[in-house]
Amino acid sequence: MDQQLHFITLATPDLETARRFYRDGLGWDATLEVDGEIIFYQVAPGLLLGLFDADKFAEDLGGGAAPGISGITLSHNVGSPEEVHRTTNAMASAGANVLKPQQGLFGGIFHAHVRDPNGVVWEIAHNPGWRITDAGEVVLG
Amino acid sequence: MDQQLHFITLATPDLETARRFYRDGLGWDATLEVDGEIIFYQVAPGLLLGLFDADKFAEDLGGGAAPGISGITLSHNVGSPEEVHRTTNAMASAGANVLKPQQGLFGGIFHAHVRDPNGVVWEIAHNPGWRITDAGEVVLG
Repeated sequence: MDQQLHFITLATPDLETARRFYRDGLGWDATLEVDGEIIFYQVAPGLLLGLFDADKFAEDLGGGAAPGISGITLSHNVGSPEEVHRTTNAMASAGANVLKPQQGLFGGIFHAHVRDPNGVVWEIAHNPGWRITDAGEVVLG
Repeated sequence: MDQQLHFITLATPDLETARRFYRDGLGWDATLEVDGEIIFYQVAPGLLLGLFDADKFAEDLGGGAAPGISGITLSHNVGSPEEVHRTTNAMASAGANVLKPQQGLFGGIFHAHVRDPNGVVWEIAHNPGWRITDAGEVVLG
């Protein structure tokens, strides 16, 4: 697996307060905001930090996994739905537990969630609406 | 504050198991390993993921802060000890709580820890042994 993260996602109990802190307090510009759901900030070349409403974060991990949710996911994007499947299987072979098997979402996204032996939740995703420009800027949607 | 993270640090209950997963399972190369303490992996241009022994992680945040430790810190590096002070104050003015005021460490490092309104712990640091090459590679020590 490429040694690269693409998203870091934080379960966010109060999205509006977080938004005020990052935007007005730190002066950061959002790459994308989905009202009441999620705000993305670019925090390194090719890397987005996602502030994800905590209830929706739990839903996204499949609901049933909620008791073990760590409040953070590390996301790794790959080139195809098949590669999501291969990468998820490779992580499981290396000792990770599959929390939510691969499934399709809105916008042609395919993803799966696994928990690594350190207890950290990873998302392995294929997202046709996500790309990195030559200058390292992330474009979404 | 620049819209840039430099380190993401995870409290790691079992460092050796985590090391086996990231190194042998994912095939990742460490930038730096300090035996029994911390392992760094570069995960984006200019960005390191740190796996930090959970007990030492708690110590680093000042011990007394342990009950509120979230298990993740976002680190932002700045150019001088004075800038650590200024940035920490700016974050406090924007609604963050200072967990550990600025202090000096080994190697000429100065840092402080603050908790943002989202409950996430940030480290603001000046580290003279850390730099990013023109190619985006992180060099430590």
